[in-house]
Amino acid sequence: MELVKEALNGSERAIAQLITMVENELPGWMEAMKQVYPHTGNAYLIGFTGPTGSGKSTLVDRVALALHNQNYSIGIIAIDPSSPFTGGALLGDRVRMREVTDKEGVFIRSLGTRGGLGGISQATSDVIKILDASGKDCILIETIGIGQDEVEVVQIVDTSIVVSVPGLGDDIQTLKAGIMEIGDIFVVNKSDREGADHVVTMISAMLDLNPLTTVWRQPIVKTIATENQGIDELIEQIMLHRKHLTENDLLNAKRKERIGREITKLLEQKISQYVHDRIKGMHPFEDLIEQINNRENDPYSSVDILLNLLEEK
Amino acid sequence: MELVKEALNGSERAIAQLITMVENELPGWMEAMKQVYPHTGNAYLIGFTGPTGSGKSTLVDRVALALHNQNYSIGIIAIDPSSPFTGGALLGDRVRMREVTDKEGVFIRSLGTRGGLGGISQATSDVIKILDASGKDCILIETIGIGQDEVEVVQIVDTSIVVSVPGLGDDIQTLKAGIMEIGDIFVVNKSDREGADHVVTMISAMLDLNPLTTVWRQPIVKTIATENQGIDELIEQIMLHRKHLTENDLLNAKRKERIGREITKLLEQKISQYVHDRIKGMHPFEDLIEQINNRENDPYSSVDILLNLLEEK
Repeated sequence: MELVKEALNGSERAIAQLITMVENELPGWMEAMKQVYPHTGNAYLIGFTGPTGSGKSTLVDRVALALHNQNYSIGIIAIDPSSPFTGGALLGDRVRMREVTDKEGVFIRSLGTRGGLGGISQATSDVIKILDASGKDCILIETIGIGQDEVEVVQIVDTSIVVSVPGLGDDIQTLKAGIMEIGDIFVVNKSDREGADHVVTMISAMLDLNPLTTVWRQPIVKTIATENQGIDELIEQIMLHRKHLTENDLLNAKRKERIGREITKLLEQKISQYVHDRIKGMHPFEDLIEQINNRENDPYSSVDILLNLLEEK
Repeated sequence: MELVKEALNGSERAIAQLITMVENELPGWMEAMKQVYPHTGNAYLIGFTGPTGSGKSTLVDRVALALHNQNYSIGIIAIDPSSPFTGGALLGDRVRMREVTDKEGVFIRSLGTRGGLGGISQATSDVIKILDASGKDCILIETIGIGQDEVEVVQIVDTSIVVSVPGLGDDIQTLKAGIMEIGDIFVVNKSDREGADHVVTMISAMLDLNPLTTVWRQPIVKTIATENQGIDELIEQIMLHRKHLTENDLLNAKRKERIGREITKLLEQKISQYVHDRIKGMHPFEDLIEQINNRENDPYSSVDILLNLLEEK
């Protein structure tokens, strides 16, 4: 496919077109991804998660700039909360990234939820592959908020960075256990603000409780992204974590797990799609809804009825 | 089932046990839900969504108190971001709710992600049914953050309230289009803070752009939850929205759509589970991962191979 060839050669226009094609599942997208796949596996994937207001976009911007100055080529994926109506990603790319936008070899893309096969994690995973195959050395993935989506996204990166910030109101919410477990590196941004040391202490205390820390003790890095402070230390820690993964053969294990999850998910989605298409046309489906709404039937029993109908076909 | 009977009679202990049973998919949970279902359909469901730091928990607390004082019995479900390791909901119920906890007829529950059948939206939907069947008049559902999870939760409530707050840093993120579209009522909490009128103006401007507003013009209510200000007006707007839905036969249509989504999802999950169980035991699965990791194969082609294998069985 000509478009894939051009993207593999690094043409930004082709990369953007290819992503649009895959994101919208336009005809030929899967064939394109099959051609992209053999060229993947070289990029290092870094995820950034944290609450709104933590200055995550600026942090990603500064990390990208610093890596760019070290001659790494960079891809940035900013994941937007999805909208059930518009598919999200309305903000555009330029609103949230600043300085780094104009640099040579830096490619930025916002992503909403893809309607069809797979959710945001599959869309992200496909865009990562395209950027990876096009020759990017590091791909930075930024998510908003902490939820199931973000957890899934974290599972597809190599190093996961959790960004906190002092004074967000409910420290407990920001630092709860679920978030602790998905971080390889913790950043306290806006660390010139009052309460920064308190946040560091809280994270440290929670890490002490975490059994996972025996393998890799997650570092806590204080940054002031707007003033470029702490960025070098953060990059150093990212490189240390990468080294840790590589030396202990964990990177390979991590990536194999990821492949297993991805094909299981793709398979589930394909079967769901099939079921969905079949069921919508089935007369009993509408009848069942009516019956359930009248409390003459219940959702759980209906599923068995539908399963039996599908099996008969 | 004795436990279901006791829960239907309003025993808080039985309700709590039943929820635990369903949440953890303990033996008999689906049978219990089948018995619960015929008694549902009376509660009115109100959802609260908004970013961390918006004072949502306090707002829910005050709305619950006010409804309690109007002699409504209340259920509250607080949805926690999930953790891939612990299943979330570590915060406990008492941390986030205050005054309302001790009131007669008020039941509060935190929810994490359920591991098995269905995600957080199915778990929430089941807990709603239990509280509904146990005789609660209003069920308040509180989610953290805005993501796919929250969008799904919004789809299972009757009135959806989006909470904003002045000065959270990036107004654009808080008020982006995706969030606008899921709100029936908008609340600007902490409205004594600087910038509250600006937030109101922004929401109003975005609502003007929204084609959906022709049916129900979403009101914007200013509150100071900690001082109980604006709570009565908010409840008035909730009741107006309920009246709007009922009078235009939209409530029924909404609930039927919800049933359709629920059974489709339950069916997909059941099939996924089946596929998952089958595949894990299949030798080719591990081989495929190895091949994909070595770039001798790709995830998309593998799915077709696995589908063929499943069909042969």
